[in-house]
Amino acid sequence: MLKQDSASYKGFRTAGIRLREELVPSLVSHRSDKIKDQLYTIHMFDKAHVTMLTEEGLIPKEDGISLLAALRQMDLDGNSDDLRLHHGGGMHSGEQYLIRLLGEEVGGRMHLGRSSGDLGEVSIRIFARDGLLAVLEKVLAFRQTLMTLAEQHFDTVMPGYTHAQHAQPTTYAHMILSWVSVLERDTARLLLALTHMNRSPAGAAILTGSDFPMNRHRVGALLGFSGVEKNTFDAILSHDNLFETASTLATLHMNLARWSEDLMLYNTSEFGMIDFPDRFCGTSSIMMQKKNAYAPQYIKGAAAETVGGLMTAYLVEKDPTSIPILDRTSSREAIARSLGKIVRDLGWMNEFMPLLDLRKDLMLARSGMFWAQAADLAGMLVRAKGMNWRTAHQIVGILVRVTEDRDIAPLDVTTELVDEAAMLYMDMPVGLDPQQLKEALDPTLGVNRRTLYGGPAPTEVAERMVEYREIFAADMARFEAARQPVLDGQRLQEEALDALLA
Amino acid sequence: MLKQDSASYKGFRTAGIRLREELVPSLVSHRSDKIKDQLYTIHMFDKAHVTMLTEEGLIPKEDGISLLAALRQMDLDGNSDDLRLHHGGGMHSGEQYLIRLLGEEVGGRMHLGRSSGDLGEVSIRIFARDGLLAVLEKVLAFRQTLMTLAEQHFDTVMPGYTHAQHAQPTTYAHMILSWVSVLERDTARLLLALTHMNRSPAGAAILTGSDFPMNRHRVGALLGFSGVEKNTFDAILSHDNLFETASTLATLHMNLARWSEDLMLYNTSEFGMIDFPDRFCGTSSIMMQKKNAYAPQYIKGAAAETVGGLMTAYLVEKDPTSIPILDRTSSREAIARSLGKIVRDLGWMNEFMPLLDLRKDLMLARSGMFWAQAADLAGMLVRAKGMNWRTAHQIVGILVRVTEDRDIAPLDVTTELVDEAAMLYMDMPVGLDPQQLKEALDPTLGVNRRTLYGGPAPTEVAERMVEYREIFAADMARFEAARQPVLDGQRLQEEALDALLA
Amino acid sequence: MLKQDSASYKGFRTAGIRLREELVPSLVSHRSDKIKDQLYTIHMFDKAHVTMLTEEGLIPKEDGISLLAALRQMDLDGNSDDLRLHHGGGMHSGEQYLIRLLGEEVGGRMHLGRSSGDLGEVSIRIFARDGLLAVLEKVLAFRQTLMTLAEQHFDTVMPGYTHAQHAQPTTYAHMILSWVSVLERDTARLLLALTHMNRSPAGAAILTGSDFPMNRHRVGALLGFSGVEKNTFDAILSHDNLFETASTLATLHMNLARWSEDLMLYNTSEFGMIDFPDRFCGTSSIMMQKKNAYAPQYIKGAAAETVGGLMTAYLVEKDPTSIPILDRTSSREAIARSLGKIVRDLGWMNEFMPLLDLRKDLMLARSGMFWAQAADLAGMLVRAKGMNWRTAHQIVGILVRVTEDRDIAPLDVTTELVDEAAMLYMDMPVGLDPQQLKEALDPTLGVNRRTLYGGPAPTEVAERMVEYREIFAADMARFEAARQPVLDGQRLQEEALDALLA
Amino acid sequence: MLKQDSASYKGFRTAGIRLREELVPSLVSHRSDKIKDQLYTIHMFDKAHVTMLTEEGLIPKEDGISLLAALRQMDLDGNSDDLRLHHGGGMHSGEQYLIRLLGEEVGGRMHLGRSSGDLGEVSIRIFARDGLLAVLEKVLAFRQTLMTLAEQHFDTVMPGYTHAQHAQPTTYAHMILSWVSVLERDTARLLLALTHMNRSPAGAAILTGSDFPMNRHRVGALLGFSGVEKNTFDAILSHDNLFETASTLATLHMNLARWSEDLMLYNTSEFGMIDFPDRFCGTSSIMMQKKNAYAPQYIKGAAAETVGGLMTAYLVEKDPTSIPILDRTSSREAIARSLGKIVRDLGWMNEFMPLLDLRKDLMLARSGMFWAQAADLAGMLVRAKGMNWRTAHQIVGILVRVTEDRDIAPLDVTTELVDEAAMLYMDMPVGLDPQQLKEALDPTLGVNRRTLYGGPAPTEVAERMVEYREIFAADMARFEAARQPVLDGQRLQEEALDALLA
Repeated sequence: MLKQDSASYKGFRTAGIRLREELVPSLVSHRSDKIKDQLYTIHMFDKAHVTMLTEEGLIPKEDGISLLAALRQMDLDGNSDDLRLHHGGGMHSGEQYLIRLLGEEVGGRMHLGRSSGDLGEVSIRIFARDGLLAVLEKVLAFRQTLMTLAEQHFDTVMPGYTHAQHAQPTTYAHMILSWVSVLERDTARLLLALTHMNRSPAGAAILTGSDFPMNRHRVGALLGFSGVEKNTFDAILSHDNLFETASTLATLHMNLARWSEDLMLYNTSEFGMIDFPDRFCGTSSIMMQKKNAYAPQYIKGAAAETVGGLMTAYLVEKDPTSIPILDRTSSREAIARSLGKIVRDLGWMNEFMPLLDLRKDLMLARSGMFWAQAADLAGMLVRAKGMNWRTAHQIVGILVRVTEDRDIAPLDVTTELVDEAAMLYMDMPVGLDPQQLKEALDPTLGVNRRTLYGGPAPTEVAERMVEYREIFAADMARFEAARQPVLDGQRLQEEALDALLA
Repeated sequence: MLKQDSASYKGFRTAGIRLREELVPSLVSHRSDKIKDQLYTIHMFDKAHVTMLTEEGLIPKEDGISLLAALRQMDLDGNSDDLRLHHGGGMHSGEQYLIRLLGEEVGGRMHLGRSSGDLGEVSIRIFARDGLLAVLEKVLAFRQTLMTLAEQHFDTVMPGYTHAQHAQPTTYAHMILSWVSVLERDTARLLLALTHMNRSPAGAAILTGSDFPMNRHRVGALLGFSGVEKNTFDAILSHDNLFETASTLATLHMNLARWSEDLMLYNTSEFGMIDFPDRFCGTSSIMMQKKNAYAPQYIKGAAAETVGGLMTAYLVEKDPTSIPILDRTSSREAIARSLGKIVRDLGWMNEFMPLLDLRKDLMLARSGMFWAQAADLAGMLVRAKGMNWRTAHQIVGILVRVTEDRDIAPLDVTTELVDEAAMLYMDMPVGLDPQQLKEALDPTLGVNRRTLYGGPAPTEVAERMVEYREIFAADMARFEAARQPVLDGQRLQEEALDALLA
Repeated sequence: MLKQDSASYKGFRTAGIRLREELVPSLVSHRSDKIKDQLYTIHMFDKAHVTMLTEEGLIPKEDGISLLAALRQMDLDGNSDDLRLHHGGGMHSGEQYLIRLLGEEVGGRMHLGRSSGDLGEVSIRIFARDGLLAVLEKVLAFRQTLMTLAEQHFDTVMPGYTHAQHAQPTTYAHMILSWVSVLERDTARLLLALTHMNRSPAGAAILTGSDFPMNRHRVGALLGFSGVEKNTFDAILSHDNLFETASTLATLHMNLARWSEDLMLYNTSEFGMIDFPDRFCGTSSIMMQKKNAYAPQYIKGAAAETVGGLMTAYLVEKDPTSIPILDRTSSREAIARSLGKIVRDLGWMNEFMPLLDLRKDLMLARSGMFWAQAADLAGMLVRAKGMNWRTAHQIVGILVRVTEDRDIAPLDVTTELVDEAAMLYMDMPVGLDPQQLKEALDPTLGVNRRTLYGGPAPTEVAERMVEYREIFAADMARFEAARQPVLDGQRLQEEALDALLA
Repeated sequence: MLKQDSASYKGFRTAGIRLREELVPSLVSHRSDKIKDQLYTIHMFDKAHVTMLTEEGLIPKEDGISLLAALRQMDLDGNSDDLRLHHGGGMHSGEQYLIRLLGEEVGGRMHLGRSSGDLGEVSIRIFARDGLLAVLEKVLAFRQTLMTLAEQHFDTVMPGYTHAQHAQPTTYAHMILSWVSVLERDTARLLLALTHMNRSPAGAAILTGSDFPMNRHRVGALLGFSGVEKNTFDAILSHDNLFETASTLATLHMNLARWSEDLMLYNTSEFGMIDFPDRFCGTSSIMMQKKNAYAPQYIKGAAAETVGGLMTAYLVEKDPTSIPILDRTSSREAIARSLGKIVRDLGWMNEFMPLLDLRKDLMLARSGMFWAQAADLAGMLVRAKGMNWRTAHQIVGILVRVTEDRDIAPLDVTTELVDEAAMLYMDMPVGLDPQQLKEALDPTLGVNRRTLYGGPAPTEVAERMVEYREIFAADMARFEAARQPVLDGQRLQEEALDALLA
């Protein structure tokens, strides 16, 4: 007799049944410790699946009740993870434990109509969905923090850069709101990824389901899915959802990394515009002057990992559909790691952004020190003198070169110097009024003049804030709607257990 | 005098104005031939921008009319691209040509309130949006083709595989519809990317716009954008839109590559299930027996390029916000190449998929030849004998091993052999009826029994077809709505020109 | 007084010294548990550094001896890792433990002239060098296994494929030796990466070393490095070595993945040419017929991770030299993971390759069944009839098409049919002798005729084996020479401790 | 009769021979314009192959002479590329042209024993080898430029940074030599890649060669290869060489990108340490103050492309060995693009590096302004007061914090302040001599004291220069040895043609 003793049941792959040798130990794929963080998803699926099997009469009612009672007891004892780790079997830890507890006759009923295929897919989807919800919650909180921060800095003038050079003055609020705009799009991407991820593959077994009349909608609802995949082949073997989640996370994480780069730059002694709270910094074991910003570095490193994980995912799936199955462990682990780190990183940023020490005086001074206001002088020539843009542009271009040669600061430029440049260009002075010159060269006035839609003028930014707030409210509602099935599923499952075990 | 002679105007960066030396020739970034395919987008922006400047009175009306007349003449002569290539200047080819034609006094008015920054960003957005629309159109056409194809194969039984092994029988329709499910999600992703991409950055200049009261909504509408970016900093310097489009394309392309891998596998002599039309194949210069499928190989290669391009995009932006500007040329070129290749590849697949020669007899025979129906035999033991799943599973596991040892084909298995396996497992026969055994082992019956939601049973697939068709209709409507602003923009621009030039 | 009590010393970054706040707990970078596997490298560096400081008189001799005695005691007690985990401090666990044990006056002497910079760099280099040596040892063992395997299969004829189609018959030995050729190049790449990695950065501190006369050559020798980096800036802040090791590993791993793909394909029921030993396979929880090859799937997944890690490394360093420091944790962890998995994967392949069950009969039959021998028939026309290649090629091309249309197997082709094809091409028969036809179509004879240099003819392969064996011997010698400094370092360190503690 | 009229010969794949339909136009893979830059490699192979066939008597001597005469005529007329573009056929353009010119009887003899497989592989290897040689030449030239530059800056003190913060003062020479060290390793990697790439696959056809006694060594020598691949299967179907070249280029390119990042940072107005020559810069169409460094941005972008191309290559090969053939076009194109861009980028850097305008005064001032010399003060406490390192480190840590709080510059610190910090730490003053304090705080003296091996002290750097020069000479010799076979091949080919055509 090859049947195992139930009390010491070791799983369905024992030598002598289908195969002739025990598995090489380093190859054991069904190991609970490898999926420790995700055991809770398997526990959910075990409960939902047996609930449905019992409700639909696909297994004897008394057996179903025994199984469900044992599963609920794990919840009551709060030791589901521990038991699953102790009894082993990974995704099959439920069956393994229940066969040991209740015998093969009862415990062996549990897996009817499931496969490692849908176990794995249900697990990663619940885990990823929960992760996406956690990320979304953090993104929304961060948006709120940033909006509040922006409102404090409508008139905090600072230099804007391109090509690593001073471009045009802007405000801290304008810059911070550009982050919020990005996060609005991240929110939309995350919500779409969530929509695709939170659909139930349960019952699809490995690609065709089984010839038992599984109630897939019931299981899906109990698990908090927002719908049921309508093709069982697709439910298990397509992996574009994984790509979508991985790339959505990569984009979000790279956005956080880009801003971390900005903060590192602004925090150099040379730029000196911001300072981090000490609790986010370390010093050196040799160079005690150092106050190294730790958080942005870890964020950048973690974002690089997330992109690496995306590449891993694409590589794994670069194969005929049927071939990579266990390989997917690699992509799933990468996504799991990234979800955790993004939540961590959004938490850090959300905490330190309002605490950054801004050197406003220096930010303003720098805004006028390196000719960032030059375009405004050309604009003044257009407005005051009716000049065409290109001519004005070239004259100011000459002016800048001349001041550079003679080491004259922008704010020290005179109308004579402007005329000298104009003469060089077109043998004609322009005759600008000193007051006009002064207005043109003042970075604060320049910012205030930028009242075009989306521009940095405080009045304009204040108007746009209304839109930001409206979009936030709408996104928050979308987030809550997307989370609702998960909350409903928890309730439905408890109600079902109450009913069956009554 | 440094002013250039208008007739031979060479652009705003000539030695002697701002800088002292001419640019190293290999560094010239504003070259028309490098952006040949995208010159039309610049032409559109030139028209829309001057239209707005004129309408708003930001330039003298007569100058605006001269400029617009010249731009429209290019359309009438159909030589905009040629003129821009001839006169050079790349994104600034419009100004360069118009200064030569109309003099600096008039031509120099054109660029007021714009920058290379928004020129580049408007250009890539129009180009990418047009590309995304073209891809969407192809995806939708392909979905339609595949649905029609599926309807012809509800009962074409074929093997389903996992881990590269025979798993369970399914149907060609079921497999093809799994592709359609993927393409539905691709459609949603493309539409979201399009929404984010088709918003106007025009007027944002490089990050703060200018201190002229630009009517950004008017320009956006004329260019067919569906909205206007509400933060000019974000409009130019954020590049998550590029990541989103690049990764959406990468995911789509990798889906096409995966299916190409499948077709290559099914087309081997050993699998022998499908054959490509000769016109998609080449032969060898040495091995004349060869009929090599060309199209799927190019699709796979192109998908690898698209993923490589995504990696390039992430790398380019891994920097402080202000630093990578010209570097972005690399990401933009990668996206442009991928858009073209995906349209090509969808076109090929759309053409050859209905023409594949299916060897249905062999597909059916293989479905029963390698024990893909084994789970159904275990299912029969559960149903007919009240056995628990795990016991049934283990007995059939032993049975398969025994037939392997004795070289017995699945369809030649007898009830005696089943009993022998059961005895080995639990010292007890199971006493299956020969008719039950036969039914369990028939792959066609097995498929027909899989009537669970989303399963491969022909009746079930037929029901799901209704959903597929409904979703298609909804997506088509979404696509058309997304395309509408583009069509509107063309009309509005023509009407504006008519009005101003009247 | 801010000085800490030695017994409970918590490290140099405590609030109140340089910084004002304690570090956010989730940011603590110097944690022993995060670098558990690499603590031994830090222990080595601690010993070597203090040995040198003592020998050179840079610290009081008696203090040096106290420190060294304590470090050696850890070795004698075999609890270095445990103590470092218990006392914490990560890379600084040595100092932390020794200050607690011996007080700040003595323990505080240890870090003179070092920095976290060279601690980290020494650690990753020793770890990576040890890993590369382990990989090299496995690669060499695998080469030997494969050569022995090839020698058993000089005449095991099998189909060769390209474009997924039958191309030309070859032998299993020829294919296996193509793997060995690849591994020869992998060996060269690994040895070069090792050469670059195994040079000492010790004493470079963070980029300029210190103003103490460190004996960097002595420390390098004690640590088993084969040389000393001649520029301290380069030693710490360049990371091309990391790229080189990461990409060398990626290439090796992708080679293993490619062969795993081959084995998965040959192991399908349809190809059916090889079978894995059961101990490398699992079965399914639902489809008990399944014998899924586990090892090649994990190898493929792990290779995808290694490539992902390479991308992570490139991304991390895409920055100004000075900025990414802690970010590098991400690349270093990726490399550490990959080193472990490659050793595992080479171990698996080395074990299962000689155990694969080859279906030689089928491999031979398939070699002649799908016209892989067609080019030989054209070759015969060239040789026997003086025909030019292209004409012969086209005639056989027609012949293949005709046999396809009439469902004639290659081995059933007659000279009449050849003439019919020739007539169709050029209105002339070719008059081939039946014996010539037969010889041309026999795949075994065809293989035997391929005696050109590097070809699959058994005689030729046997001759090339001599070269393979010679190269192996030379590579083994290179490997041993590369490993020698590591062995020497261990001896030198023990001798130094003996001398100082005598 | 299906035979084509020679004069209008269109290639071996015409409908009616092996296949029934003409190829879809967008699929034609053998197109000369697609491989325009590489046609010269095919021309070389055509000549070498026919030379060998003729010498070995594998084709009639007179036919061989006709073919060779025609091929040489192309050289004499300098129109090989033009003819191949005109007559089409891509890799088969030689045969196509020669059949049209000399008829199928003669022209059809050319392809004996070759395949598209070795045509493609020979072509990419010659192209890549030539590219690697060109890159190596540029790397060596750049090393020489940088060494000369370093020699001018032994005492140009500048700040060294880590974590984006001031770390320790170093010199421009020390930094520049860190680049040279990297390039030394790049040289070693390039030479190894070249060794692997420059081995002949000619005669391997597609994987087994042919049953004609090809003289592969002769063809290899004529083509300038340094050896012949000893396994024909490996010669065509392994692609680790491509990975190796692609990753070697990626690492080199990313090194150039990193230094470009550094230069961009040092060139900001805030850092202000270097300035680019105007001819490598552009200005803005709106912000005329801009002097944007163009070259480093393009270098960074191109490096990102090279890494993207590497990813593409890995993805293409993630497949069973036999499947990706045409897909490889994608990886080959990526490598070809990168080779060109790296040569360009090294050229730019080689030109502008000696022309950078260094602001030495500011570099020195900054070296002492932000406490980069703090570690030297602690070192002084160790040396002068016998203090242990950690105590000294903590005291100076407190000192830095206090000066920060009181806004005291490092150079204004007094011995009293040091004592105050010491008191805070350990209730004891340290009693440093003012002269000692001054010496410790002087960045130039600090650099001069760093005489440890590899350190920045001018005397030490001067000594290391000798090593740098020696290694350069050795590398130059290796480069020349590696190039020799290529030069020999050209001579041998000409001699062979002279002999045969005499």
